[in-house]
Amino acid sequence: MFASTGRLTDLICGTEAANALWSPRATVQAMLDVEAALARASALHGVIPPGAVDAIVAACQADNIDADALMIGAQAGGNLAIPLVKQLTAAVKARDAEAAKYVHWGATSQDIIDTGVVLQLRATLDLLDADLRTLSDALVIQAQAHKKTPMIGRTWLQQALPITLGLKFAQWLDAITRHRARLVDLRARALVLQFGGAAGTLASLRDKALPVAASLADDLKLTLPALPWHTQRDRIAESAAFLGMLTGTLAKIARDISLMMQTELGEVAEPAAAGKGGSSTMPHKRNPVGCAAVLTAATRAPNLVATIFAGMVQEHERALGGWQAEWEALPDLARLTAGALANIKGIVPTMEINVERLARNLNVTNGLVLGEAVMLALGDKIGRLDAHKLVEGASKAAVANGTSLFDELAANEIVTRHLSQDQLKPLLDPANYVGQAQAFVDAAIACANSKE
Amino acid sequence: MFASTGRLTDLICGTEAANALWSPRATVQAMLDVEAALARASALHGVIPPGAVDAIVAACQADNIDADALMIGAQAGGNLAIPLVKQLTAAVKARDAEAAKYVHWGATSQDIIDTGVVLQLRATLDLLDADLRTLSDALVIQAQAHKKTPMIGRTWLQQALPITLGLKFAQWLDAITRHRARLVDLRARALVLQFGGAAGTLASLRDKALPVAASLADDLKLTLPALPWHTQRDRIAESAAFLGMLTGTLAKIARDISLMMQTELGEVAEPAAAGKGGSSTMPHKRNPVGCAAVLTAATRAPNLVATIFAGMVQEHERALGGWQAEWEALPDLARLTAGALANIKGIVPTMEINVERLARNLNVTNGLVLGEAVMLALGDKIGRLDAHKLVEGASKAAVANGTSLFDELAANEIVTRHLSQDQLKPLLDPANYVGQAQAFVDAAIACANSKE
Amino acid sequence: MFASTGRLTDLICGTEAANALWSPRATVQAMLDVEAALARASALHGVIPPGAVDAIVAACQADNIDADALMIGAQAGGNLAIPLVKQLTAAVKARDAEAAKYVHWGATSQDIIDTGVVLQLRATLDLLDADLRTLSDALVIQAQAHKKTPMIGRTWLQQALPITLGLKFAQWLDAITRHRARLVDLRARALVLQFGGAAGTLASLRDKALPVAASLADDLKLTLPALPWHTQRDRIAESAAFLGMLTGTLAKIARDISLMMQTELGEVAEPAAAGKGGSSTMPHKRNPVGCAAVLTAATRAPNLVATIFAGMVQEHERALGGWQAEWEALPDLARLTAGALANIKGIVPTMEINVERLARNLNVTNGLVLGEAVMLALGDKIGRLDAHKLVEGASKAAVANGTSLFDELAANEIVTRHLSQDQLKPLLDPANYVGQAQAFVDAAIACANSKE
Amino acid sequence: MFASTGRLTDLICGTEAANALWSPRATVQAMLDVEAALARASALHGVIPPGAVDAIVAACQADNIDADALMIGAQAGGNLAIPLVKQLTAAVKARDAEAAKYVHWGATSQDIIDTGVVLQLRATLDLLDADLRTLSDALVIQAQAHKKTPMIGRTWLQQALPITLGLKFAQWLDAITRHRARLVDLRARALVLQFGGAAGTLASLRDKALPVAASLADDLKLTLPALPWHTQRDRIAESAAFLGMLTGTLAKIARDISLMMQTELGEVAEPAAAGKGGSSTMPHKRNPVGCAAVLTAATRAPNLVATIFAGMVQEHERALGGWQAEWEALPDLARLTAGALANIKGIVPTMEINVERLARNLNVTNGLVLGEAVMLALGDKIGRLDAHKLVEGASKAAVANGTSLFDELAANEIVTRHLSQDQLKPLLDPANYVGQAQAFVDAAIACANSKE
Repeated sequence: MFASTGRLTDLICGTEAANALWSPRATVQAMLDVEAALARASALHGVIPPGAVDAIVAACQADNIDADALMIGAQAGGNLAIPLVKQLTAAVKARDAEAAKYVHWGATSQDIIDTGVVLQLRATLDLLDADLRTLSDALVIQAQAHKKTPMIGRTWLQQALPITLGLKFAQWLDAITRHRARLVDLRARALVLQFGGAAGTLASLRDKALPVAASLADDLKLTLPALPWHTQRDRIAESAAFLGMLTGTLAKIARDISLMMQTELGEVAEPAAAGKGGSSTMPHKRNPVGCAAVLTAATRAPNLVATIFAGMVQEHERALGGWQAEWEALPDLARLTAGALANIKGIVPTMEINVERLARNLNVTNGLVLGEAVMLALGDKIGRLDAHKLVEGASKAAVANGTSLFDELAANEIVTRHLSQDQLKPLLDPANYVGQAQAFVDAAIACANSKE
Repeated sequence: MFASTGRLTDLICGTEAANALWSPRATVQAMLDVEAALARASALHGVIPPGAVDAIVAACQADNIDADALMIGAQAGGNLAIPLVKQLTAAVKARDAEAAKYVHWGATSQDIIDTGVVLQLRATLDLLDADLRTLSDALVIQAQAHKKTPMIGRTWLQQALPITLGLKFAQWLDAITRHRARLVDLRARALVLQFGGAAGTLASLRDKALPVAASLADDLKLTLPALPWHTQRDRIAESAAFLGMLTGTLAKIARDISLMMQTELGEVAEPAAAGKGGSSTMPHKRNPVGCAAVLTAATRAPNLVATIFAGMVQEHERALGGWQAEWEALPDLARLTAGALANIKGIVPTMEINVERLARNLNVTNGLVLGEAVMLALGDKIGRLDAHKLVEGASKAAVANGTSLFDELAANEIVTRHLSQDQLKPLLDPANYVGQAQAFVDAAIACANSKE
Repeated sequence: MFASTGRLTDLICGTEAANALWSPRATVQAMLDVEAALARASALHGVIPPGAVDAIVAACQADNIDADALMIGAQAGGNLAIPLVKQLTAAVKARDAEAAKYVHWGATSQDIIDTGVVLQLRATLDLLDADLRTLSDALVIQAQAHKKTPMIGRTWLQQALPITLGLKFAQWLDAITRHRARLVDLRARALVLQFGGAAGTLASLRDKALPVAASLADDLKLTLPALPWHTQRDRIAESAAFLGMLTGTLAKIARDISLMMQTELGEVAEPAAAGKGGSSTMPHKRNPVGCAAVLTAATRAPNLVATIFAGMVQEHERALGGWQAEWEALPDLARLTAGALANIKGIVPTMEINVERLARNLNVTNGLVLGEAVMLALGDKIGRLDAHKLVEGASKAAVANGTSLFDELAANEIVTRHLSQDQLKPLLDPANYVGQAQAFVDAAIACANSKE
Repeated sequence: MFASTGRLTDLICGTEAANALWSPRATVQAMLDVEAALARASALHGVIPPGAVDAIVAACQADNIDADALMIGAQAGGNLAIPLVKQLTAAVKARDAEAAKYVHWGATSQDIIDTGVVLQLRATLDLLDADLRTLSDALVIQAQAHKKTPMIGRTWLQQALPITLGLKFAQWLDAITRHRARLVDLRARALVLQFGGAAGTLASLRDKALPVAASLADDLKLTLPALPWHTQRDRIAESAAFLGMLTGTLAKIARDISLMMQTELGEVAEPAAAGKGGSSTMPHKRNPVGCAAVLTAATRAPNLVATIFAGMVQEHERALGGWQAEWEALPDLARLTAGALANIKGIVPTMEINVERLARNLNVTNGLVLGEAVMLALGDKIGRLDAHKLVEGASKAAVANGTSLFDELAANEIVTRHLSQDQLKPLLDPANYVGQAQAFVDAAIACANSKE
């Protein structure tokens, strides 16, 4: 009932879909896919007999692999490819003893492991790409819908000036749009074949080296790089950085949502789901379980990125620790990022938005947050400096007297001389002091749409 | 054949023993051990009926738990304890419906999870303690055995002055001795009960709260802390720091060994083991597979520590991300540290030591590394400044002429005036210029032994 | 008006006092203090002429050092000691040409740099020790004063159950008490002399090596270690870990304060200070400037710790990067930690506490947070399960009807049958449901006091 | 003589040029440049009187700023812009009291700080761009020059198979080429204006907000973003990631060079420079001072990146710690990266290359590293499996007998039957078994040139 390894927490921050891309089976299958493609490519150029291909390709199924034996073999050899090739060879031999001689021909362990990782990374980027699009669409809809919904803007966790909820969505959206652009750049640079043989010269393939490499890349639909990159890990680092940055943005969203969800604010809530974050004895309590998962991911992601960056400092033609450190850090990072994205994607379209609480919270300072608006209007009449002093005084008085800013201003002779109550009232309506919020929403949406 | 989660690489840097301490089963069993102890402690003080204890305790076996259901439940609830308590309650109910009402009485999820982790941590510290003692003993033997074995000391990866191999072992030993002292301090501070209920007041246990807490700590053989510590994570952070520091020291050892193992140096080698690090086609090649595992651990450990430190900044009475980030980071760190220790413990006692190569490498500069020894002796006769200039000149001449320092000095009139060849020769014997190496070895051993 | 190096932000997270301990001048003076002590110790054992001491000691003043020349020299030599010794020698020579020959006798650059750092670290620990005591005293007072002040406990950023403000202070206090214990352990282990000469054997001091080392330690009032520790950095790592952990705890306090300071909560505020965090136009706004500084420190500290841990993996007898990485990371960490402590120490004793808002916030759920209290009392009468269902129903009704939990319960026939209004009312008073809050406060204070 | 802040170590890993870009003066000037541009842009659209511009612009000189007062003011206000604006206003007032009213009009502190950082970042990218081009050119020359120079390829720090020195250069070159492409992408995404006012709506600029923003971007030659990005830090994170990745690649180069520089290998050396890394008493010693600086940078960089990534999780419309953590981390990272690049750029073109040692080291295994070459040739005659066994046996015999692989093979009857000595000899010449080394060099150079 219990696996010997693994984590019961895998679904708390992750998702089944993302976990599946980096599961033991997927990892093995990705490496076997490379071995199969290598057999095909080698046969194409006469490096191995055409007759050997079928037996090799047929054996390249994860089900032929004994996971426990693989783990134990990896301990002795220091990587997964050595015992995998051993098992694969045995599996081929059981079919065709002659073909077994041609397994893994010309490749080194790192070729198989790295290219396998690239295949898994590609699948991950595909998943992220789709989810980013979905999230982007949802954010466009929310930004549009709440373009004019006023809420308080907060700086330093203090109420500052009004914004609109749509602007908040637009801010999130615009960062997501940039990540989508980064994903495009990353694909082009990171999804490349690794194939160099023992020391990166492909020496054992003699004059067939380059043709085999080209066919192998072609077979796997990967870019053929100018040369192998065994100890040049910038592509992996860039992938990690992308994942880490995306997680950072998603966690900023989660932080905002969880702060707005505080019992005392009650502005939004994660969508209700059976058994999700609820408490039978405390019906007022709605735990931001999804946000917590994202914030957890963001506590870990920067340091997973740091691990991969630290690992870049590799020795000569094969590393002693730096490469190996990627093996658990990159999958963890990929799963956390995909999980964080899935959570935010799940929350944004159906999150509960309490417009009444947004409005009520706008008024907890009794209008003080609109002081600047009055000051500007009054400044047009009596000069900015005097207006500033007047509003500052009225604000302090409102605090001291427990009155509203409107009360204080309406009772002020200088104010009433220049502004009627009918002129004053709208100045203290937050909806009238959200600046370019709508224009910014439009701009963010236009940017997002230009990526479609 | 493949688990849905987990890592095939778990044994590359880890060990079966350490993995077992943090396996899914062990994690569940640790939490169930807390639930069982809670039932006993609660019954002791009349909080729950004595008759409920047996059914609860009997059900607290990991085999009663469906791991897959646990994972899925954890996704919704945000932690493992919620679905675990649910499953446990069902298991108790199957035995004794009345007893099922008293499962988890008075506790909060975090009480179970945190105390479970403390139990796993204690088992880990026990394992590390034993392995540290074994490693310490091996280092004492090696330091003693090679107290006088000269080798070159290297600074900036350049040959500097002679040391002894024993001194190198003594350096490693002394750090290990300090870690053993840290482990003692850590045990006293970190191995404490977590028990506070929903908001850390134990309110639902009314006047029985403190007695139950005391009995629970007693039952689990854990220290009873002054108060619950749900969002005060310094104990966990200190545990992580200890693990990270130990890994750092182990990796320093691994770095030294792997550098000395370089083909061109050949001074030491990891012990040969079937299939370990060898290459059938390259018999000259002995891959430092054990050292690589340790260096991998040390690439990851600092960032796992950073994750746990970053997670300390927790919100109010229960955290939103910071706590949850520990759940995978701490087990990873514990397994990596235990694995690194197991590797170094496995290497040190039986590592191959090539005394001939140590001696040969001492001579690759043709005596230049002994210039200081000559300078000091000569300085007694002709003054330090003149001696310095003379030896510097002779050294440069040796490099330029491809001769040895001895040749140049023996041909120098000033030298021969003050030092006979019989006096000069021993000055150029590295064994005579290792300073306090032996005294330092003795001191390190004395320190280590004082811990026994 | 502008220094060529340095940071204008040094005081935002730091303090003048802490900055001064790690300033350029202090760094140079610490190294010079080691050189002066070395001269005294060497003369004591006849290694250098007694007559040389005065000139050397007299020259060991930071004012004799040209900082710009030092920086440039450090670029070429790779460390500060090489150019410092050069300048020091010149300064001694200007006084006494003979004495100049004996500057830095027997030491290596790392001896001077490391021991200098240990001296700076000692001063830092002294500063932290004093500030920790002050903070501890303030927390004792606050915990005592608010032992019974009810407030809402929050989990997942959601209102959960009542606690007392005193308990919150006690939680912070207890972590500080543990850090004070760690500081004692750290002093004993970390404040040791570094003295080993070029390769760690003290060979050039011949038979006077150990006596000089002992006297040098004595002169500097540092512990004499069993042997030099050039590439064994666990003591530095432990120091870094202590600083990082302390910062984590301080930031947890800052997080709580800044969350409680939110405009919508208004429970506490950083003490007002001229120009600190205020806004002339927004008198409602009180920026948590001190908390922000602490949270900034805590964003950086874990990664500074990680840097120092990563640097532990050092090569042979002198490192190539790992040691050097400490030079900026450790001072940064020390300054950030001292600054964070100064900030929290400044906030805690005089923070504004709004007891009225604490009470008001306890009531925003209209009593729902007291459901458990009612359930327990009612459970004594009608059985826990039925009580649970009843309170759950009443809670949901209160939410649905916009009534209070009291209203719903008071209207419930089963409730009124077992509980009179006079019995029900106190159950819904938060002050009556804070469990062991007072006992925990007392325990935390007792622990803190036992350290005095 | 000593600045109150700053680091004496600034030049060890940094350079004067890079330090200057992030010096206190440069930081202040960048912010003042933004203020000056804001005045011009605002006047252009009638927001402030045209007559105010000259006085404001004239005062926007760093020399008008008192650095000490700035630091102290920043402590109270929590950022540098508040006291800077205060000082600037005073400086303008001294010229033109009316103009002083229009300083900083419509902007918030973060607008000035962020846009100032972007200006400094642009200058840094310019510097890196130029240095990357220079380094690229040097690597092209070295790769070309040593395209055919055989050397041993090393995996796991063990000798593996021959490569060429040119291939090693080509590997480094290719990574640099990719970083140059990343720099282009980064410029387009990161060098954008920050301008949003207090809550990101530009409300106080009313209908002139967008025109002023456009003119401000235009004036500063920065891209105008779709909307302000105060708490969306992905652009800064991407900048940090780029710097961290580049440092990782540079440190990989430094690691290779420092390993090849080991006394026992002696294959290359950092170029000699007066006082750089030499030792008067140990003329054989050439400390890799430049490489150490780069490796130091790479020990720190990943964690500085992690800090900035961790800081992305910002609260609402202005962060409490996450933003502020960038202020020291990003400049440190920029300086370290620029310093690392300057070091490698300085080493590569003039590094000493000892072709004789490269050749000698190729032979330390007595030909064992060429076993695969023989095996392939022999395999053509007797089948791969038999050839494998034969060579394996000969290799083991060579190790056991202390003979060369050639000796053993030449004495083997099966070998001599199929291969004459004239055929065997070239198989054991490393130059004949470097596979696609030359083709890969050509490809890397072609890639590099395609970026010019």
